[in-house]
Amino acid sequence: MEKLLCGVDLGGTKLAVGLVDQEGGMLDKAVTYDHVDKDEDSVVKLIAESIRTMLINNHLTESALEGIGVGVAGHINYRKGMVITTSNLRGFRNYPFREKLQAYFDVPVVMDNDANAQTYGTFRFGAGRGYNDMIFMTLSTGIGIGIIIDGKLYRGFTGTAGELGHTIVEPGSSMRCTCGNYGCLMALAGGIALPELYEKTVKKGIKSTYAVRKDFDYQSVDGKILKEGLKKGDPATVAVVKEMARYTGIGIYNIFQIFNPPLILLGGGLLELGDLYFNEIRKTFYDLVKEMLFDPIEIKISRLGPDSGLLGAAALILERS
Amino acid sequence: MEKLLCGVDLGGTKLAVGLVDQEGGMLDKAVTYDHVDKDEDSVVKLIAESIRTMLINNHLTESALEGIGVGVAGHINYRKGMVITTSNLRGFRNYPFREKLQAYFDVPVVMDNDANAQTYGTFRFGAGRGYNDMIFMTLSTGIGIGIIIDGKLYRGFTGTAGELGHTIVEPGSSMRCTCGNYGCLMALAGGIALPELYEKTVKKGIKSTYAVRKDFDYQSVDGKILKEGLKKGDPATVAVVKEMARYTGIGIYNIFQIFNPPLILLGGGLLELGDLYFNEIRKTFYDLVKEMLFDPIEIKISRLGPDSGLLGAAALILERS
Repeated sequence: MEKLLCGVDLGGTKLAVGLVDQEGGMLDKAVTYDHVDKDEDSVVKLIAESIRTMLINNHLTESALEGIGVGVAGHINYRKGMVITTSNLRGFRNYPFREKLQAYFDVPVVMDNDANAQTYGTFRFGAGRGYNDMIFMTLSTGIGIGIIIDGKLYRGFTGTAGELGHTIVEPGSSMRCTCGNYGCLMALAGGIALPELYEKTVKKGIKSTYAVRKDFDYQSVDGKILKEGLKKGDPATVAVVKEMARYTGIGIYNIFQIFNPPLILLGGGLLELGDLYFNEIRKTFYDLVKEMLFDPIEIKISRLGPDSGLLGAAALILERS
Repeated sequence: MEKLLCGVDLGGTKLAVGLVDQEGGMLDKAVTYDHVDKDEDSVVKLIAESIRTMLINNHLTESALEGIGVGVAGHINYRKGMVITTSNLRGFRNYPFREKLQAYFDVPVVMDNDANAQTYGTFRFGAGRGYNDMIFMTLSTGIGIGIIIDGKLYRGFTGTAGELGHTIVEPGSSMRCTCGNYGCLMALAGGIALPELYEKTVKKGIKSTYAVRKDFDYQSVDGKILKEGLKKGDPATVAVVKEMARYTGIGIYNIFQIFNPPLILLGGGLLELGDLYFNEIRKTFYDLVKEMLFDPIEIKISRLGPDSGLLGAAALILERS
């Protein structure tokens, strides 16, 4: 029988474990939120127990697994299997995650950051199937890319390649990134930019149906409010979405100039902003690219669905073979 | 006997042909300027004749060659062996260069753009030896990178990967690039920017020992004048060099975030601007990178010397094997 893949998606709020077949079919999954306030070793133990429970529930033993793949939201050293740092979980500074989880199992354990996991999942199970090179771009609180070259994830020296969100595209900007620099792509076009971007837009004199309220807190502006604002036709929301999309389009154009890839897939929560957002991204790209596009490049939204993190984590096992 | 490599460096003003051993030793070379006003087929014929002459002069026959590698300054489709377009030579639009030159020889002919050739030469014969991944950055009239991943040149879909000079790093800039866009890295930090950059600097009120002359033409500002200006301590020159270096440092920082490479080598004529330029590039990089540098990255000037184009072209033959 073909072996199964076990995926673990370890996020700041959600911990998901799943059983996946070699074609990306989800056989079972379980979600818990119990890891949030635990220390590192206890989180690893919880993961191991969740996997064991799932195996038992499915009348399986460990030997049914090809391996266990873990996607973690954070800075990861893939080679060493270390979580270098993460802002989404307590602790986990230079934590030897892979080794710790491996201690519970005989089948191989691999771990990478969630962006790489999702990239590889899309490459094996999604719209990237059949390509040799591709870029997967996450548009969410932060912005990052996963890089597939010659059928493999390109991770770089430390494993931090793909931090497109920290490339500087507006050096004189007053928008500060979490990294401390100004004018990083994610400081201008990532979810983290929303409160400041919205406030600036309103202060430029663009009307807002929200900011007129006395108790309005700019810090409350998030993707959900933006989505609602677009439905209502809130002028400030439209301006903010267009500006984010314009910088995102510049980011994609920069990817094009550097990688000249046949395929750029977009994923992440910001895409729920819909057509206005996506169309403005594409328009910016094509306005810039002009006659420099010698072969068609596909820029598409990836649809691995809500389990993409889990599927990606599971797919990581396939990269080993 | 170990076979020899034949390199051809086809530039806008200079056409060089050379015989190179497998370790990058130059055995013979010849330079001509006769190609400049010839049509495409005649340029190819001239190259073939130059190679034949060199073989005869060295008492060799074609069978002594492992192959012929050609580096061309222009947009190249490596897979198809086509020159898509070049602004340095007459004609050569969608010209099947490799096929045309191959018709004269039995040994394999390969062709790529000069940036990729130089990158691969540095990787095989220069400071890149022993690395698996590296970036070679050319700082010249234009700016571009060559990308080595897993020991191979990464060229992208069409073969135009590495056009870092066309990434946009200052969208609101009034500095226009040859591509028509504003705020491309090379429009801000490449040799093409010098006249406009110098004029802007003087008009901002920074003193210039050149611009005081009645007959001074800003269009005359080039790398040579800048080098002289630095020696003289011309304030406008110092300001221009620092600004170019600052944008170049941002470009290198962006490369770091995207590729996280162990090694970035710099080449190209602008490096003759010396310490002020190079130190400001490094300072900008390290100011931005802060604690995001988990492993040391080497940023060095590459010294393959004046024959780097020729050595790179010859090295391309080794990539096939």
